[in-house]
This record gives sequence, structure tokens and C-alpha cells, in this order.
Amino acid sequence: MKITGEMLIGKTAIRGRESTLRALNPALGTELDPSFGGGGLSEVDRACSLAQDAFDPYREADLELRARFLEMIGQGILALGESLIDRASAETGLPKARIEGERTRTVGQLKLFASIVRDGRWLDATLDSPLPDRAPLPRPDLRLRNIPLGPVAVFGASNFPLAFSVAGGDTASALAAGCPVIVKAHPAHLGTSELVGRVVQEAVATCGLHEGVFSLLIGEGNAIGEALVSHPAIMAVGFTGSRRGGLALIKIASNRSVPIPVYAEMSSINPIFVFPGALARRGAKLAEGFVNSMTLGVGQFCTNPGLVIASAGSALDGFRGMASQLISGKNAGTMLTPGIQASYRDNLERLSSTHGVSKLAEGQPGSSTCDGQAALLSTDAEQFLAVPHMQEEIFGPASLVVSCRDIDEMISIAEKLEGQLTASLHLEPEDLELARPLITVLERKVGRIIVNNFPTGVEVSYAMVHGGPYPATSDSRTTSVGGKAINRFLRPICYQDVPESLLPVELRDANPLFLWRLRDGKLSQS
Amino acid sequence: MKITGEMLIGKTAIRGRESTLRALNPALGTELDPSFGGGGLSEVDRACSLAQDAFDPYREADLELRARFLEMIGQGILALGESLIDRASAETGLPKARIEGERTRTVGQLKLFASIVRDGRWLDATLDSPLPDRAPLPRPDLRLRNIPLGPVAVFGASNFPLAFSVAGGDTASALAAGCPVIVKAHPAHLGTSELVGRVVQEAVATCGLHEGVFSLLIGEGNAIGEALVSHPAIMAVGFTGSRRGGLALIKIASNRSVPIPVYAEMSSINPIFVFPGALARRGAKLAEGFVNSMTLGVGQFCTNPGLVIASAGSALDGFRGMASQLISGKNAGTMLTPGIQASYRDNLERLSSTHGVSKLAEGQPGSSTCDGQAALLSTDAEQFLAVPHMQEEIFGPASLVVSCRDIDEMISIAEKLEGQLTASLHLEPEDLELARPLITVLERKVGRIIVNNFPTGVEVSYAMVHGGPYPATSDSRTTSVGGKAINRFLRPICYQDVPESLLPVELRDANPLFLWRLRDGKLSQS
Repeated sequence: MKITGEMLIGKTAIRGRESTLRALNPALGTELDPSFGGGGLSEVDRACSLAQDAFDPYREADLELRARFLEMIGQGILALGESLIDRASAETGLPKARIEGERTRTVGQLKLFASIVRDGRWLDATLDSPLPDRAPLPRPDLRLRNIPLGPVAVFGASNFPLAFSVAGGDTASALAAGCPVIVKAHPAHLGTSELVGRVVQEAVATCGLHEGVFSLLIGEGNAIGEALVSHPAIMAVGFTGSRRGGLALIKIASNRSVPIPVYAEMSSINPIFVFPGALARRGAKLAEGFVNSMTLGVGQFCTNPGLVIASAGSALDGFRGMASQLISGKNAGTMLTPGIQASYRDNLERLSSTHGVSKLAEGQPGSSTCDGQAALLSTDAEQFLAVPHMQEEIFGPASLVVSCRDIDEMISIAEKLEGQLTASLHLEPEDLELARPLITVLERKVGRIIVNNFPTGVEVSYAMVHGGPYPATSDSRTTSVGGKAINRFLRPICYQDVPESLLPVELRDANPLFLWRLRDGKLSQS
Repeated sequence: MKITGEMLIGKTAIRGRESTLRALNPALGTELDPSFGGGGLSEVDRACSLAQDAFDPYREADLELRARFLEMIGQGILALGESLIDRASAETGLPKARIEGERTRTVGQLKLFASIVRDGRWLDATLDSPLPDRAPLPRPDLRLRNIPLGPVAVFGASNFPLAFSVAGGDTASALAAGCPVIVKAHPAHLGTSELVGRVVQEAVATCGLHEGVFSLLIGEGNAIGEALVSHPAIMAVGFTGSRRGGLALIKIASNRSVPIPVYAEMSSINPIFVFPGALARRGAKLAEGFVNSMTLGVGQFCTNPGLVIASAGSALDGFRGMASQLISGKNAGTMLTPGIQASYRDNLERLSSTHGVSKLAEGQPGSSTCDGQAALLSTDAEQFLAVPHMQEEIFGPASLVVSCRDIDEMISIAEKLEGQLTASLHLEPEDLELARPLITVLERKVGRIIVNNFPTGVEVSYAMVHGGPYPATSDSRTTSVGGKAINRFLRPICYQDVPESLLPVELRDANPLFLWRLRDGKLSQS
């Protein structure tokens, strides 16, 4: 498949005339062919208008067709073969093996949502039988199902060119819910976006769906994204990126005449609590696991561990020594974009120069301007509790070790933390009871609690939560990874005494789809 | 039980010193004893601090205890007997029979949520088994449950002194979810609020719960409510009232350093679509049902029908004539407060004097300043589509009949409507196919679709949705009535490789609570 530099608006491909953009190879510092034409308001309007037209027919289409559509996107992505891997690797500086893994995850997400669509539990079909003889008034026949919110705007993420981009998690869950999707391509991987976008466009056509089910927009700066979120046709937004970017979109969405939900996954430092038993028994192994996790993907994961909390003492000294040694040997890696590299350098410089923070170790210096050099910093609990900005995310391979006097101080730090995607605890059997009160605190702070592992690596499954209290995300009631992500794009509606012939098929008496339904408070599939 | 005029902060009763308030008997225009002491910021802070302390122990308490607590509140409300009915009737001008019905509903709501707490499906327990041998990486053990958001602020509604007030729907669903609740009493029914508040306070003590699980605040103006929504301990807000009031709270909540969700149920005109067959066959009966629904409770229901849409012709002329005749015979009724009466009069005057609107009929004039006089107005579709303010809610016994040329014009009106709580359709068999495209449109506009009935009367059951797109509510993804209201106060959390002894009981291997759980994508109770 050839990359043309065009936007995909419904079934058409259109070259934008408002600006010219090019993707960059961050490892080489060179621009990549071809040039892309950036669109403007008229393309936003055209895509939104098509999405609005597509909404009713798409949400009313057969669920089996919707599931096959998702699977077909996955097959199409695989069929792109090496051309996709090469392009994504060139645009992001990420190694091919990582991109291949991400492709597997992306296809897996589409398959998971296909099976969720078929299963139909997301419809939450609920039936209350009429009670015609009830006094003083009869009870009507009431039937509830979930329906999709409407067209969704998805912003591609810089750090997941496949899994959180054009056909990534937000798109898959919105399409699964029955929402048309308009993606704003991330400027860092325009070619990857077009390749995947054309796969989705083709799947729309092959499945005979309304062309407005999917569009892909490209634009310089923030104008096109802002116009998209402002457009009356858009009913929800999915975003993964910086806190500043997320908050800007939330502001636009709340100031609309009809405000809409924004699911923004924004920032997290993913604290790791190392308990005394674990530190004493396997400090060296923990240091190794930690350094690998914090430098994985040049530290550019939402779940990158930016904070280690442990009790002071010789065991912690040993951990810090071992971690420092490992960090010192780590090569610098290419970061996703020059902007991300510059922010990393500035944020690291700010934290390093904060009173009470010392630098334990640095990785090998980089050779190009887009390289990120790993860093390990250290402070104590008193300092950490006194300086709020110490817990601001540094997107990249840097982490801060906080030494505490005791478990109470570890809990005080947990209480002081902002909302996080994850928290990890390293425990041996003798630590379990010490950990219990910390878990109670962490339940209020995070979306996922991990024991004896590191936070990088997010499983795509039914029980995953990739979410958490503000500012980790803008809406703790949801997850952006895993089966429950479909719920973000649904709302309930009730049908009272609606005749069988006008009822949606999932609520008809005979349960022709064999759905799990709650009938008069009892769950059954009959 | 004696009404003292005090606030209830945890287990204490405190007389506020910031202001003096009195409830009014709107039918007589007289002030009621005793006087109430309005509180200030220190009471907000004290209640919030107690609620924060209560959150962990309350959410970790046994589910059976939580269920019994809800039931005990219901029993306590019944035990108040006539004193509650008398006081609520005096404070609202609502007839005793209506208050009795509302009491039944309130107790029913508490019972429904008790059974929902026991049932445990709201926990959404989800388990993904580990795959230790998976290549390239093993899959961890993942378990998800829902946990409560934190302390919730509830604002008593003017029009439901029991069912949407101190121990009403918002309180019951938040307590069921495991959230402590702080209620801001509605100034129109302070005595009713104290009576019910003391019942809740007593139930907290009898059940041995942390005193901070419940507090009741009283205050003049908006200061205490604003301070409550601004307080860092509060994690969600339930509100039923005017659009202006709801939007003000939403603004405060979004400007917090940690924004929180506000569930505001704000305004709805609950359109009624009368189809040609139904109009021809039973126009007179429809007129009677409609006039009864629009004047019920002096039109002071969120689901009051403020708009009738039908095709022009002799059948509609007949309907209008009959409705006018019935309206003319309706006595004026006491409205809830002088403020509500004044707004009703002003809004009605504004609509009546709008170009293209004519007044069809008025009810009997009132005798006191708090009386609301029914009114029926008329316009045509062209005018209605041209003047957006014609669809603004008039809280009270007024309604607008819009005559259309044909079904296409009825659909055009539906497309133009703002979000609504309900829409009703009156249909005969010959209307069914005509109605199909309208239902598709209405699904995008409302929370509940009713056939051959009127919107007043909201069943409390599993399948009810009392919600809908903005501005009917601030969050269409939820309902404020019915079992699913519990979801408003929950968020998911995932436990990865957490040892059995540290897992919450609902996620342990043996399923000791016999919950419905999703294990590896399969739903079962084993």
C-alpha cells in the first residue's frame, strides 16, 4: 500500500491544502517522504457530517457485522506486513520487535472487542415485567439497553503508533460500542496513520457500512483537533497524551453548548513500594527488574515507574547501588520526537536541581539530539512530602528513589500522591500484614495494584483497568484498555410499554440473540 | 421526634450560628416553627473531614451490614408516622396522599438498593486467570472489582421532599455504593429534612458505622453548597433542580484542582407525540390523560409534559378543544415555594407573549400568591422550529401544543429538541410503521421512550432510566432513579498478582459471597 499524504474523509482520500507536514525519523533526524497535506475546518465539518449520517445506520447494523468489521481491520493490519513495521519504526525510533509486539496487541484488541460485541453483555439488557394488577397503579413493562453516545473523536498517541492510534484501543472500543470514529492523526507518525487508516476505510467498504463510520484527519498545530472537539456532531473524545493537552481538550468540551465527556489519559508516575522483607531478600534482583522497567522503550510508557519508595537502611543502600550501576551501563535510546526529548531534558534538569534531590546515576550519554539518557535520582520522604512538584511526571527514562524512616512514612507518601494509573508493591510473606493498610490507601489513589512485578506491560483482557483518579485520567470511572473500555461510549435508555415490533431485537421477549439479560432482578440467558 | 432546628454533623446535632432560616407553609403563606440555625464553612469542613475518615471503614464493612443499614433507614422513616407526613405536607403544599405515596417510594428505593447491595452484581467482579506459560511473556493474574468514589454531596430537591431529598434516591444509591453522604437540606423543607436526617443518624449509630457516614447541613443562600462541592474530600455530587443551579455546581466542580463528577438532573419538557390513528380514535381520552398528567402535582414534576406534537386537522382541533375545556375547569394549586411560583408566572408570560404563540385555555385563577394557574398554549411547527426558547422548560402546569403538517414535520421537531428525560408516543396499530423512524431519532434525544402513556410516574425498578442527554442531565451515561443509579458512584480497580490474603473477599478464588463473576470471559455464580 502506497502512502500518499492524503486525509481519509469517508470513502474519499483528499489532500489538505492548509499546511504541509512531514514525518521525521527521530533516530536519523531526517524528514520522511511523502509530504502530507494538512486539512482545515471544511474537512472537519465534512468528516463530522458524514459521521453524524453514519451513526443511526451503524448503530442499528447487525452485531455480527460489527464484530466482523473489527476483525477485518485486524486482518488488514496484519496484511500490511513489513511495510507497516518499517514505517512505524522509522517514524518513532522504536525497534521493529517492539512495533511487532504492538501490532500483535492492536490486532488482539480488535479481536477482543469483536468477541465482546458478539457476547452482548455490554447491552446490559434489563427487563422488568409489567404488573397490571398492582395497586394503586399498575406497573408498566420496562426494558433497558445501552446505546452508543454518537460519533467519537480519537487523538492518536505519540508513544503507541499502533495500539493507541488510528485503529488502537480508543477506536476499537468506540467502534465496538456502535460509534463512528474520526481520528486526528498524531503528527509524529503520519505515514503509519495513513496505512492503518486505509485499512479501516477498506473494511468499512467491504462490510457495506456507511462511509461516515470512519475518517482520518491530518492538521498542523491544534486547530483541527480543537475544531473536532468543538463540533456539535462529536459526542465523546478519546485522548492519550500530556496533561496540558488533555486539559485543553477538556476545557473545549465543557464550554460547548452541549458539553461532552473527554476520556483523557494524561500522566502517572506509577509508584513502586518496596517492603523490608522483599528489599532484604532480593534487593539486587529488584534493582535489575526496576531498571529494565524504567528504561523500557526509553521510558516512554504511561506506566513507566517514576518513583520508588522504600525504608532507609543498608538494604536500600544496596538497591540504590545496584540500580545505579545498571543505569550507568544503559545506552541512551532514541526518543519519539525532538519535542519529547527536549521536555524530558528540561523536566529532568528541574528535578535534579531541586533542593534535597541528588543524582545517583546517569546512563550512557546519547549521540544524537533525539536521544534520551537514563537518570536515577534520590531524596528522602521529608523532602518529597514538602515539595509537590517532585511528583510531576517526567516522561522518559528517569526515576526518583525516596527513602523513608518506616512504613508509616511510606503510607504518608501514598496519601500525598496524586491519582495514578498503577502502584506496585514488592512483598515477601513477612511483609503481607505491613502492606494491608497501604493497599487500603492505594485503592483510593490508583487504577491497578500490582504485587511483585513492575507496571510496564498492560495486558489486554477483561479484568484490566488502565485508568485511575485525576490527574492520571480525566475520568476514573472508566478504563482505556481492556474489555470494559466499551462502557465509555454507552448510555442507558428505557423503553416503556413499547410494542414488540418497535423494540430493538435485544429486548424482545424471545431473546433471539441468547443474551445474558436481567429479568425481574434475575440474571439468565434464556 | 422533635424538630430542633439543628444540623446533624456525624453523631452530633449542632445549631448553626451564621444565619436563621424558617420553613414556609406555601398554602398559608405563614412561617413554620422552629427556626433553623444555618451553618458555615466550619460545619462543611467538619462534616467533610468526618466523611473522609468514614470512607475506608464504611466501604470495607460487610455488604450485609450495608444492606441492613439501608433497610433500617426505611423502617425509621415509616416509624416517623404522621408527624413526617404532616410536616412535609405543610412545608410543600403537597397533599398528604401524595406525600404518603412518596414515602412508599422512598422506602421502596432504600429496599431496592439493599437488595442490590446484597446481590453484588454492581461489584462487576471479573477474573482473568494467569497464563504462566504464555510466550513471549506470561500473563499475570488479573482481578477487577468496582469500588466507591468517595464521599458524596447530595442536594435535596424542592419537589420531592422525601424521594429526592435527605434519604432519597441520590443518598440511597451513594450509600449503597459505599460512599459516605453529606446532604445539603433544601431550604423549602427544613423540618422534613431534619426528621429524616435524624433517622439516618440513628441508623448509622445502631449499625455501629463510623459517624461520618452521614451529615446534614443547613445554610442560607448558596455559600454552604458551594463550599461543599469545592471541598477536597467530596468526590461526586448529586443534584436535582434548575438548570442554572446545576450548571453553577458543575462549574465549581470542574474548576477544582481535582475535578469531580456532578450528576445534575436539570430540565426537560418531555414531549408527547400523538400519531394520527391514536388522535382520530381516542382524541378525547388522550386530552383527559394529558391534562391530568400536566397538572399533576401542580405541574412540578421533572417528567411534566410541556409539549404536545401532532398533525393538524379536525382530530387535533377536537383534542385541543377538549383539553382546553378540561384545563378551564382545573383549580389552581399551591406551588412549592413563592420563588417557583414567580418563575412559573414569568416564564409563562414570556412564552405566551412570544410571536406565533396563542393561549388556548387557562385554569381557574388562584386565591393565594403561591398558587399556580394551569395554562395551555398553541403554536405551529414552523414557529416552533424558528424560536429556540419555545422549548425552554416552564416548571409548572403549562404546556404547548404544536401542530404539524405531517409526520416529517413531527420528526423535524424531534431532531431539533434538546436532550430530554422522556418522550411519549401515542399509537394505534396503523401508526406503528409511521413511528419507527421517530423512535430512531428519539433514542438519540431521551432517556426513556413511553408508548401510550404519559411521562409522569417514574417507576423505581431495575430497568428504569431517569436520565438523558444534556441539558436534561449533565451526564447521559447514568440514571438517577432505578437500580443502575448505583453505577454513578463506582469506579473499577484491578488487582494484579495480589496474594489471596490481601484480596477483597469478593475476588477470592472460592467466591465465598456466591457472586455473579466474569471468569475468563464466562459469566457464572460458581
